Amino acid sequence: MLPVTTLSLNIPDTTKPRVVIIGGGFGGINLAKKLRRQNFQVVMFDKQNYHGFWPLLYQVATAGLEPDAIAEPLRKLFSADDYEDFFFRLVRVTSINPVSKVVSTLIGDLPYDYLVIATGTKTNYFGNEQIKKFSFPLKKIPDALNLRSQMLQCFEQANMTSDPDLRQSLMNFVIVGGGPTGVELAGALAEMKKHVLPYDYPGMDISKMNIYLVEGMDRVLPPMSPEASEKTFKYLSQLGVIIKLGTVVESYDGDTAVLKNGEHIRTNTLIWAAGVSGALVDGLPPETVERGRILVNEYNQVLGFEDLFAIGDIAFMKTDKWPKGHPGVAQPAIQQGQLLGKNLVRMQRKEPLEPFEYTDKGSLAIIGRNRAVADLPGNMHFGGFLAWVIWLFVHVMALVGFRNKLVVLSNWVYRFFTYENGTRLIIRPFVRKGDRLKQRFFDKYNAE
Amino acid sequence: MLPVTTLSLNIPDTTKPRVVIIGGGFGGINLAKKLRRQNFQVVMFDKQNYHGFWPLLYQVATAGLEPDAIAEPLRKLFSADDYEDFFFRLVRVTSINPVSKVVSTLIGDLPYDYLVIATGTKTNYFGNEQIKKFSFPLKKIPDALNLRSQMLQCFEQANMTSDPDLRQSLMNFVIVGGGPTGVELAGALAEMKKHVLPYDYPGMDISKMNIYLVEGMDRVLPPMSPEASEKTFKYLSQLGVIIKLGTVVESYDGDTAVLKNGEHIRTNTLIWAAGVSGALVDGLPPETVERGRILVNEYNQVLGFEDLFAIGDIAFMKTDKWPKGHPGVAQPAIQQGQLLGKNLVRMQRKEPLEPFEYTDKGSLAIIGRNRAVADLPGNMHFGGFLAWVIWLFVHVMALVGFRNKLVVLSNWVYRFFTYENGTRLIIRPFVRKGDRLKQRFFDKYNAE
Repeated sequence: MLPVTTLSLNIPDTTKPRVVIIGGGFGGINLAKKLRRQNFQVVMFDKQNYHGFWPLLYQVATAGLEPDAIAEPLRKLFSADDYEDFFFRLVRVTSINPVSKVVSTLIGDLPYDYLVIATGTKTNYFGNEQIKKFSFPLKKIPDALNLRSQMLQCFEQANMTSDPDLRQSLMNFVIVGGGPTGVELAGALAEMKKHVLPYDYPGMDISKMNIYLVEGMDRVLPPMSPEASEKTFKYLSQLGVIIKLGTVVESYDGDTAVLKNGEHIRTNTLIWAAGVSGALVDGLPPETVERGRILVNEYNQVLGFEDLFAIGDIAFMKTDKWPKGHPGVAQPAIQQGQLLGKNLVRMQRKEPLEPFEYTDKGSLAIIGRNRAVADLPGNMHFGGFLAWVIWLFVHVMALVGFRNKLVVLSNWVYRFFTYENGTRLIIRPFVRKGDRLKQRFFDKYNAE
Repeated sequence: MLPVTTLSLNIPDTTKPRVVIIGGGFGGINLAKKLRRQNFQVVMFDKQNYHGFWPLLYQVATAGLEPDAIAEPLRKLFSADDYEDFFFRLVRVTSINPVSKVVSTLIGDLPYDYLVIATGTKTNYFGNEQIKKFSFPLKKIPDALNLRSQMLQCFEQANMTSDPDLRQSLMNFVIVGGGPTGVELAGALAEMKKHVLPYDYPGMDISKMNIYLVEGMDRVLPPMSPEASEKTFKYLSQLGVIIKLGTVVESYDGDTAVLKNGEHIRTNTLIWAAGVSGALVDGLPPETVERGRILVNEYNQVLGFEDLFAIGDIAFMKTDKWPKGHPGVAQPAIQQGQLLGKNLVRMQRKEPLEPFEYTDKGSLAIIGRNRAVADLPGNMHFGGFLAWVIWLFVHVMALVGFRNKLVVLSNWVYRFFTYENGTRLIIRPFVRKGDRLKQRFFDKYNAE
């Protein structure tokens, strides 16, 4: 027996100042890139060993892309070829102590000179344990692979039932949340309904498949312009998505979603894309946390500290222009990570720091196969095919590795001409969430 | 609550003769292709919804390819565009009754006119339950993804331990079985050791990584020519693989592999590629089964039946040239499937059947990045880069879909020039096989 206590962080001592970054998302990696060869020891902690391009996660869920197309191993991004004194550790941070300047992980503590919290967000079920138990989140790669297998398995099962109610329940998909994830997922599902499923399931009446999109606000894509919301509503409706605005899903027991407006929808698959909350770490003084995010000044310094920073979605920087903080998308995280990298170098040189100013590069969402909506700086809004081309270009360029760009682009070109979604492999057993009785049958169903 | 009994096979009645195929492997899909538009109703059962190109599975395990590159959904292969009266059902066959001519599945029975067993093989642990519990098989896509995450997690853990014994155990990989899977896996791991891991884990002495290959016979690749075995031994040794011939692993408790020759190897990862046995179905008369395979005549008819067939790995066709049956590779299955397709048409037309004759197209195995060994018909044996080019060409051409060819080829070209293995994403929690005490720690380690 090997005692597990033999694990330790194994970070070498150094005379260089040590920057500890919690999280390898957009903020964390852009910061670490700026610190390359800048006389720092950089330590990055993450619970995953990869950086993901999450705006495309819904494409993994709908079998359009494989995980490697949207994710890049952090060790590959910061390989020893290019980065000296960079240390990645796949471990969970349990707490921080900003007074004694120590980060604690499950396998040991590490003193720091500068600590950067770049932990992003996690799925927020707003305290509804029942929905948490029965719904499918879409936040990580395993979530996307699970959802993909689930959707395909629902059609396999629907194809094998003579009970019309069960069949309908298996063919109903309820997406909760009309933000970018919900909207893009609904569009992708609608395209599968049109171009893929009728050929895969010839014996079935695929027109009975229903895609519901439930949004609590009075328009889809609330973070975007009213023009974009209107176009998105039109495009999704043309694709056959049933949009329920101004209402929320109040309960879901694995069989029936009950909406606040009184509607009942029987469904086997409820996808929860309704909200996120900051992935906070223990040990922060309570006065630094507001609405689940960490209050920072214009240098991303956490309220009351000079050497503790928060960047990206977890940071709450109140400014005149953004009184509720910056939007929870990639750009603020990227820009804050880059600026903090420069500012840490300045701090070392005792130079004045540069305050953060957000450059809004616009927002984009794709609707289905070849239409998109775009809000560009300068109050420009447009939609349709042109927006789609911009969307494609922006997303491919933003992908991290050269290989990923190639894989995604060749996938998209292929799919554009063939109307084909690629990778409809079921690679997990069929699960009926939270239902042990049924699960026993499916255990037998899945057995060797 | 939905009663699960509402599931049923839902195969429409028909006046056409019904061919039921159990298994969507090389045999099954080549048979089904030949039956296209031939006045049969074709029903295919499989427990997976995809056809896999298993000779490349080890590349999924070593992060060289993603699953979609080597697998194609069966519904896509037999899409309604091209195939009328083809019915795929994702369900387990529980038994057959060749007298009453009925196939039973977990959700219902189906009468047949012709039944073809094309179930292939499953991992054979030769009754060793301990090895089954603690080792990693490499037979299916989830196996490959598990093994990939396991190997990467071992390095992450090795990087975080100060205990030299534990570290060595985490860096020892024991592959049991020197057939094509074992040999190709050992070569791929050796290339990762050389070209990838030193850059991913700069603080570690990767030269301490050991790749063991254990083979019971006195040479590697026993099904190939002695020349190929010799070259393979040389290439693998040059790559640093430690080859143990003429011995077997007798026990493995999750910590230490004990070899028959008395050697003990501490390892966290034992990969079981030592054997397969036929995936038999219940209900076959005992006299039709020999050495775990189904005895067939030269028309692939099961001994004593006119309308029951077995093809591919599960079939045992004794001939003068192949007294032990055909080799357990793709070609006999492909050729038998194609011929049976033609023969079923002939049977309908009351024409005489054509007996099977195996056309040996040669054998190939890749060793590492750019060397291979080839036995070609006409007693031609060669190795090195030329064999590798043939290997590459043959495998890419054999991949089923156009998309897969493109994906695999672009991956290989990219990797050839960059020495890079692509997709090192850990997408499952860290598991210590069969060790609940340690698992409890890792549950905490993996927790949100």
